This record gives sequence, structure tokens and C-alpha cells, in this order.
Amino acid sequence: MKSTLENLRVVLVATRNPLNIGAAARAASNFGITHMRVVNPYEPAFREARSAVGAADLLSRADQFDDVGSAVADCKLVIGTTVAKRRDLQHHIYSLDVKGRTIKQQLQDGPVALLFGSERYGLSNDEMSHCHWLMRIPTREAHGSMNLGQAVAVCLYELVRGAKVKPESIVLPKKESVRKKDKIADSAEVERLTQILLQVLRDSEYIKPRAVASEEKLRRLLRRMKLIANDADVLVGMMRQVAWKLHENEKPKSEKAPKPE
Amino acid sequence: MKSTLENLRVVLVATRNPLNIGAAARAASNFGITHMRVVNPYEPAFREARSAVGAADLLSRADQFDDVGSAVADCKLVIGTTVAKRRDLQHHIYSLDVKGRTIKQQLQDGPVALLFGSERYGLSNDEMSHCHWLMRIPTREAHGSMNLGQAVAVCLYELVRGAKVKPESIVLPKKESVRKKDKIADSAEVERLTQILLQVLRDSEYIKPRAVASEEKLRRLLRRMKLIANDADVLVGMMRQVAWKLHENEKPKSEKAPKPE
Repeated sequence: MKSTLENLRVVLVATRNPLNIGAAARAASNFGITHMRVVNPYEPAFREARSAVGAADLLSRADQFDDVGSAVADCKLVIGTTVAKRRDLQHHIYSLDVKGRTIKQQLQDGPVALLFGSERYGLSNDEMSHCHWLMRIPTREAHGSMNLGQAVAVCLYELVRGAKVKPESIVLPKKESVRKKDKIADSAEVERLTQILLQVLRDSEYIKPRAVASEEKLRRLLRRMKLIANDADVLVGMMRQVAWKLHENEKPKSEKAPKPE
Repeated sequence: MKSTLENLRVVLVATRNPLNIGAAARAASNFGITHMRVVNPYEPAFREARSAVGAADLLSRADQFDDVGSAVADCKLVIGTTVAKRRDLQHHIYSLDVKGRTIKQQLQDGPVALLFGSERYGLSNDEMSHCHWLMRIPTREAHGSMNLGQAVAVCLYELVRGAKVKPESIVLPKKESVRKKDKIADSAEVERLTQILLQVLRDSEYIKPRAVASEEKLRRLLRRMKLIANDADVLVGMMRQVAWKLHENEKPKSEKAPKPE
């Protein structure tokens, strides 16, 4: 029987402690999660967690990725978890308890990624830039940072709570797939747009060649738009043409350079 | 501000693993619990947990009891947690998510105890007999048993969630800036973006000079985005720069044009 939780991707980013990986997997299994992803884990920890007695079946099937971008490529909504006190964050931050319903709705439409950062540093700015928004568990400020496994458990509980039918027996009518036109762009599509626009802006000297902050800013800006898949495609096509034109225009200049002699 | 959570007594019964005692204390501290009680713990485990680096202040102040009866003596409501599959239970069992409100109401009236049994056996029949009713976390049946620290975290989260005043007022990004950031771009702003993008696309030969249909398409596309005012501004700036660059690149060409004569 299918639950909408099948669309949830629990993504552990740069986790270092095998006990935490195991604990997160156990919580995920408790709540009926079927997809777990691991980004750039500390290798020995991941191996150890996988081979631990009682490691959830889930963990053995977990997919491993090199970076957040590829781990969330198929997701339409990417949410980062944070304790939100480290720095000025550029994203909107919502409390878990006010966003549960929104996430549940999105889960009916397609894959949603829920990111958990490293035990020590949480998610980096670059990792966060792949997120549509951030979420925090309503812990007290003086002691906000939760144990990873507990944080995973609490977030998943919020997604399960209130369901009339509890995990295992949840069956939701399969939604007639939304018109293709209205389909929200997934992360890979938005990332394609990000990259081509980035190139155009560099070629136009709007941003410097290796300005990481600008890239992150742009990534966040484009994710705020909630682009429709079709529109994202069209915009990519537009920017490709602009990029081509910028290069084509430049050619005469460089061809001209040798001419003067 | 006083939270009604001051009336909650988190009671660990016959816990054996020091890591679990520590994890439960950490979760309790995260959610602003002020009273923790320990019944008949495995002594060395309790000592170890108490002396662990980073053990919550809460744990050092935890009261120790010999039996459940004395641990809950001052409580008006005693709730046992269970995975509820071991045997014929005599109590009513409710799912955590349907009982959160009831517990919160009771917390306004006086002390409420929340009991967590041993890792291996849960609460014994005798221990349960002190409870008014039992509660279970809505985990899936095939893998219902949660890690102790995670179970504590989830239960406490349920009691905190939805509170208008979060534990120790959570700091969210300044309202002022959120409001400004949040403002949806008005039509004039989106039209400015439409016009500059239109110019860029014409200069790049993506659309023909007077293609009205394309202009309308573009206008609709940009309006589907529900742009935030700030983002619209940024995009206009980007496209202005691109437009400038397209012209700058072109100059040599047009300067070249008259030369042939």
C-alpha cells in the first residue's frame, strides 16, 4: 500500500557519526519512510552504520551522492532543517509545526527532500542554496541544537501526525497527474536555469567569474519563484540564446584584434 | 514567561543505557522541560549519564525514586507510553497526536507525569497500573519500537507544537525585513522586468523585433512567477547589465560597418 511518505526523501548531508546515521534510519523506518539518501558522508561512518546489527533495511538501500544538487535533482520541494542561530540566513525560516500541512500537500504531488546537515555545522550556505526554504523545530533558544536522530524523528512525526490512517495502511487516491503545463519544475530543471543564467551574468560582467556568494544568491532567487516546468524550459531556451549572442558578438572583436597590423 | 511545561514530569522507568538517559535529558532540555525523574535506573548507567560531558543541567537535578508510585505521587494525570503490542492491555490507548491538546490543558492545572519504560520491556503491568491511560506514537506496526531518546523528543514536541509562545521566544529574521522582502511585486515592477527582458531577447534574436505574440507570452510567463518585489528589482538589474553588454559587444561591429567606404 502506498503512502504519500513514499515521496519523501530524507537526506543526510555530511553526517559523521555512524550512530547518528543508524538512529536517523531507525526513526525513518519507524515512520514508514521508504527513501533515504546520504550526501558525502564520512565514509567509515557510513560503512559502519550500514553493517551495524539491526541497521534498518532502509539504510542498506540508501542512495549515496557526492553533492546536494544531485541528491535533490528529482525533487520539487527541497527543505533544509536548521537551528537558525548561526548567521544571517537568506531563506525564509518556518517552524515545523506550521509547515507540516504544506509539506503533506506537496508530498501528494511529487518528491520532496528534507535535508539534515552535519552534526557539527548543520547545512552550509552552499547546501542551503538548493533549498526552497528552511525549517526549524521549535526548541528553546538557549539549547536549540537537537541530536540528529531525534530531529529526524520529530520532523517525520509531524508528517505522520493527524493522518486518519496511520503509516502502513495509508492509501490516498492517486491524483490524476496534474496537467503537464502546470507541473512545478523539479530541482534539476531549476538548476539548469541557474547555470545558464549564471553564465550569462558572468559573460555580461554582472558577477565576477568565481563569486560563490552570487551563485548562491541566484540559486535562492530562482527557487523562490516556484517556476512551472514549462516556463523553466522556456527561460532556459531564452538564456541559451542570450549566451550564444554574447559570444557571437564578442567574436568580431577578437577577430579584429589581429587585423590592425 | 512561564510555560505550562513546568508542570510536566518526564519519568524514565528502569532505563538501562546511559546513552539513552543522556539522550532523553537532551531532548527534554531542547524543549524546555524543567523536571525529570528517574525510577529505579540501572545505577552505573545513571551515574555515567550524569557525569557525561555535556549532560544537561536537567539531568544533574533529576530526582531519583525507587518505584513509580512515589515518582508520580504529586501528579494529577499519569500517562504511560507504550508500543502496545506486547499483550492485552487493560488501559485505554490513544495516539499521541490526538491527545496533545488534552495533556496541554491538564498541564495548566497541575503536575502531569509522562512515563517511559525500559528499553527492553517497556512499562511493566505494575508500572502501568499507576497510569490513567496509555499513549502510543503513531509508528508503523511492523517497526513500532522507537529509540528512547527519540520517543521522548517526539512526545515533547507534540506538547510544544502549536504553542503561540514557543519555548523562550524563537528569533526569526526581523519582521521588518521579511515584510519588505515578502512584498509581491506590483504590476509596474513586473512590467519593467518584462520590457528589459524583451529588449535582451530581441537583441539576442530570440524573438523577432515586432513579434507581438512573443511579447504577450513573455508577459504572461513573468506574471505566473508571483515575483517578490525585491527579486524583480534584482532581475531588472541583471537584465540591464546583459542588455548593456550585448550593445557594448556589438559596437565594434557597427563601428566597422561604416569603415569599408
